[in-house]
Amino acid sequence: MTDPRPFNFSAGPATLPEPVLRQVAAEMLDWQGSGMSVMEMSHRGKEFISIYERAEADIRELLAVPANFHILFMQGGGLGENAFLPLNLSRGGKVDVVVTGSWSRKSAAEAHRYADVQIAAEGNGRAIPPGWQLRGDAAYVHVCTNETIDGVEFHELPDLAALGSDAPLVIDCSSHLLSRPIDWRRVGLAFGGAQKNIGPAGLTLVFVRDDLLGRALDICPSAFNYATVAAAQSMYNTPPTFAIYVAGLVFQWLKGFEYAGKRGLAAIEQRNIDKAALLYAALDSSALYENRVDVSCRSRMNVPFFLKDESLNDRFLADAKAAGLLQLKGHKSVGGMRASLYNAMPLEGAQALVSFMQDFEARHG
Amino acid sequence: MTDPRPFNFSAGPATLPEPVLRQVAAEMLDWQGSGMSVMEMSHRGKEFISIYERAEADIRELLAVPANFHILFMQGGGLGENAFLPLNLSRGGKVDVVVTGSWSRKSAAEAHRYADVQIAAEGNGRAIPPGWQLRGDAAYVHVCTNETIDGVEFHELPDLAALGSDAPLVIDCSSHLLSRPIDWRRVGLAFGGAQKNIGPAGLTLVFVRDDLLGRALDICPSAFNYATVAAAQSMYNTPPTFAIYVAGLVFQWLKGFEYAGKRGLAAIEQRNIDKAALLYAALDSSALYENRVDVSCRSRMNVPFFLKDESLNDRFLADAKAAGLLQLKGHKSVGGMRASLYNAMPLEGAQALVSFMQDFEARHG
Repeated sequence: MTDPRPFNFSAGPATLPEPVLRQVAAEMLDWQGSGMSVMEMSHRGKEFISIYERAEADIRELLAVPANFHILFMQGGGLGENAFLPLNLSRGGKVDVVVTGSWSRKSAAEAHRYADVQIAAEGNGRAIPPGWQLRGDAAYVHVCTNETIDGVEFHELPDLAALGSDAPLVIDCSSHLLSRPIDWRRVGLAFGGAQKNIGPAGLTLVFVRDDLLGRALDICPSAFNYATVAAAQSMYNTPPTFAIYVAGLVFQWLKGFEYAGKRGLAAIEQRNIDKAALLYAALDSSALYENRVDVSCRSRMNVPFFLKDESLNDRFLADAKAAGLLQLKGHKSVGGMRASLYNAMPLEGAQALVSFMQDFEARHG
Repeated sequence: MTDPRPFNFSAGPATLPEPVLRQVAAEMLDWQGSGMSVMEMSHRGKEFISIYERAEADIRELLAVPANFHILFMQGGGLGENAFLPLNLSRGGKVDVVVTGSWSRKSAAEAHRYADVQIAAEGNGRAIPPGWQLRGDAAYVHVCTNETIDGVEFHELPDLAALGSDAPLVIDCSSHLLSRPIDWRRVGLAFGGAQKNIGPAGLTLVFVRDDLLGRALDICPSAFNYATVAAAQSMYNTPPTFAIYVAGLVFQWLKGFEYAGKRGLAAIEQRNIDKAALLYAALDSSALYENRVDVSCRSRMNVPFFLKDESLNDRFLADAKAAGLLQLKGHKSVGGMRASLYNAMPLEGAQALVSFMQDFEARHG
């Protein structure tokens, strides 16, 4: 094996903490003396139930999820939730969506199948748009709080009440879930795919306030009806057991994580702030690179950037890979580069990227 | 680690081939020199694409899937497919379902949300019912070809044409998929959850004939629209990448599997026949145990059985576990015991179970 491991800047599926991967490997043939791999366990057996219950308790503790929120372990990812959300919450009525980039635009397009969708405001993918037009009788307001492709992040959740709306706020927080606290007082439902900060692709977490259950349309598939899933503790369907196990190990890792005199979520948030500050400072002081997102909403997790001389793109990627810096190519819809700095990326990864970029600029800029 | 590993008779998630688990553990931190775990790879990168393409090609070869069938790697399991099927194929019209046990009953109940469902025949969970009432204008006929809970298996696929119907046959083959060949001439669509013979829970395989694409209702979620998924080579949504990787290793293991002078699927089918014959013979010659399924449709994969003195159930399970025979408890809706003899269960596992049962009967019968 390569030693040390290269730094992996993939936007998702994405880098995971090395101690978690080592534990997964060590337990692969025999989970804690059970004689079984976690992949081989009945989801209804006491072994897996203990894994599930600990994972649920740990993420509830990490994110300080209030008791009146259910935590659902589901399947289908963000694109699945784009349909399951209006199927569960819209009652076929009005849904307001704030478009801040690619993901919220996709969400609005899918919700159209089930609800009367209004774009409450539309940004250019570089800033959070002002002047939201919110309808008083909307079933919910949908916001993507971190646009993975565009690199636009809400650093504070919108206060719908202050904007004159009492509709529940729904946040798609896939790509920054567990990177920072969530102000649950402002949220009715939060969802995120696991494959950024949490674990393997194929697991979706949904946090739903209990008063929002029981509103599903008759055409909502049972396996994706939040009330059904909540009542069955996410075991209505066979859940993605192995992904839940890996996620649980990530939660344990995070609970014990220490940085800058802090611990747990506060520690990882501080490290995320420091990593992002390092990279944005390098971008802003460079003559070769640029990030085009407004400084008020630059994402800590996903940093898209461009080489002003795009003819250098291929060389940049090849040299980066040779330097042990992987998966930096930007999303095909945007081009350029993208560095994702998820929880599992160490500070040294951001430092190595910045050093490489400065060296590359010195040689080619 | 326990050595040798105990035999795990779970109905699913279920036992996997030990060489596969060893390879997964060995590659956990660095897949083939990439410096990444498979969990950490972008699904659009060349590394994962190579894993996906090989898995698709291998299962196509193993099951001799014709070129006019698409193979979709999806999420949501059997209960999800119970909704996605009528959403994709029913056109809101007629669906005929043959009820042979718990799973087909659940499928019929879910399809009611989207289609005019008729129970074409209803069995008692111990035999395949005769006298199917098939409607000439049904959009499809749904059959569960192996009832995991009841232990009822079709050993030959129904020939709908011979029964006077030209509707496509849809088979839910979750719990015997890849245990035997499939006669594709009789099938329009086949689906199965991976967590029996294929890999981790959270992956669903759908084999769909190309003329059946493009019939989805407008209310079908995009991420579960077969035409959308097929056009995107199962990458419309981020697929469950790690589960696909493990499934691919299982396919490679099966391609090289040898038994009784045979190789691949023929070899595993022969071993499955031999394991089941061993266990049913023991049950039929016992005064303590009984299996209640008609001999014409006893499942090779899932063998439910009962102790005639049910007060011995707890002792049976405890003694079995002490003897290294795990997860033999029957489904809660049926009671008694259930031994699942999936592909990865060696002949020695069935032999050990029979020996234990005979010994237990000698002591307590």
